Amino acid sequence: MLYIIGLGLGDEKDITLRGLEAVRSCHKVYVEAYTSLLSFGVSSDGLSKLEKLYGKAVTVADREMVEEKADAILSEAVESDVGFLVVGDPFGATTHTDLVIRAKKLGVQVQVIHNASVMNAVGVCGLQLYRFGETVSIPFFTESWRPDSFYEKIQKNRQLGLHTLCLLDIQVKEPSLEHLCRGKKVYLPPRFMTVNTALHQLLEVEQVRAEQAYSEESKCVGIARLGSVDQMVVAGSIKDLLGVDFGPPLHCLIIVGHTHDLEDEMLQLYALRPL
Amino acid sequence: MLYIIGLGLGDEKDITLRGLEAVRSCHKVYVEAYTSLLSFGVSSDGLSKLEKLYGKAVTVADREMVEEKADAILSEAVESDVGFLVVGDPFGATTHTDLVIRAKKLGVQVQVIHNASVMNAVGVCGLQLYRFGETVSIPFFTESWRPDSFYEKIQKNRQLGLHTLCLLDIQVKEPSLEHLCRGKKVYLPPRFMTVNTALHQLLEVEQVRAEQAYSEESKCVGIARLGSVDQMVVAGSIKDLLGVDFGPPLHCLIIVGHTHDLEDEMLQLYALRPL
Repeated sequence: MLYIIGLGLGDEKDITLRGLEAVRSCHKVYVEAYTSLLSFGVSSDGLSKLEKLYGKAVTVADREMVEEKADAILSEAVESDVGFLVVGDPFGATTHTDLVIRAKKLGVQVQVIHNASVMNAVGVCGLQLYRFGETVSIPFFTESWRPDSFYEKIQKNRQLGLHTLCLLDIQVKEPSLEHLCRGKKVYLPPRFMTVNTALHQLLEVEQVRAEQAYSEESKCVGIARLGSVDQMVVAGSIKDLLGVDFGPPLHCLIIVGHTHDLEDEMLQLYALRPL
Repeated sequence: MLYIIGLGLGDEKDITLRGLEAVRSCHKVYVEAYTSLLSFGVSSDGLSKLEKLYGKAVTVADREMVEEKADAILSEAVESDVGFLVVGDPFGATTHTDLVIRAKKLGVQVQVIHNASVMNAVGVCGLQLYRFGETVSIPFFTESWRPDSFYEKIQKNRQLGLHTLCLLDIQVKEPSLEHLCRGKKVYLPPRFMTVNTALHQLLEVEQVRAEQAYSEESKCVGIARLGSVDQMVVAGSIKDLLGVDFGPPLHCLIIVGHTHDLEDEMLQLYALRPL
């Protein structure tokens, strides 16, 4: 059996009882390192917080390992119980559909244990989840690569009065191009996009496209460390939030659509000044 | 402190460790009975499964009680720790924004403990969450009340190639009109809309509106008991799914938009016949 277990958003205590029982019953446990594991006490020193809670060793599986060794991991799951832990929910922002499909092809039984993900926990700001449109991703712009497909999506959502969740770029274990050219695998330090960078990029694209999808005055909500004890939620105009220091990652951003009274009242609790 | 704690979707073991610690530290614990508590072992006999796990009494707070006694519940939370448990996530399909706003007004500190909700766990079917548009609710039609505002929303989502999550009506503790007229409060037995009823209603509305928002051939996914061990997921055309018995509640439905290869491959695992 392959257990794909969501860890939730905060720290090691956000696993569910069902998830913890499954991990403890597993012969081998992997944790994916695609996304941030910062708050889970996972560092180069090891996985002490998770391992202490589980009472067993946990192997960090980065993107490369999952892609190259998926079949090896899955073949273990034919004979015994293997746990694959993911931050958030297994089918949240980063999905593990490919792993499920591969498993089914190899005849491995799969059990999914859900948890909170950014996709539902953003509801904490008071905006109703059912009034969100398509979710967008905002990638780090480089000098030569400034993709802006999020622009039309935000525009369409706003035309329909819907809110837009913007997932902000995470670059973990990106190979250094300079070193790749020399045939060495050296990785860049991890980078996490801040709310501020995202807002600057949004304004830059609006300036180029000039279709009034949004403006400096558009209402938005910046969220940092969603689901953690030191979570930060600030509502205000794009201009207002440009100057706010949201602190350590992860950050995400919501471009607000048409709001109902109850949504307004709740946003007000997080507002820099009356909205 | 008021802890608003998500219980997740399956049973009492879907609470997180953080949630369990909070419940155990609380002086008084309420569980909301707005939505189904079927799988949590909550019955007229009591709350044995939850109470056994928590080691303390749990009071069921139905809609009436929360509305009428919110201030009393909240005033307890000024002096001591009170837990308010909700099925799914506190800001999922049923939100508790009003409780948070009331609490803040009374100066009560609030801590939210997230969990999986239908809004993110539906990703288990393989459709990517970021490609869902606005969520719709499908209410039980009556002879005189057949609201169809979901129709345009599904239409707009499909025009944009997006999937639509349909939340199906739950009627718990609905007062009996007949008895209300006689001045007595008597409640109708709970009703949960099935995938089949939802599909029949969708087809009826399409027949009336005739704007080809969808047809009998449109691809959809029916889900029952999401997140439980006996969860059921079936993909097929509306026509195909009309005849499927999804068993006990809760049910939900997804009208599929434009799909990517990985989404198709995953849906195929749940398909009645090749899609």
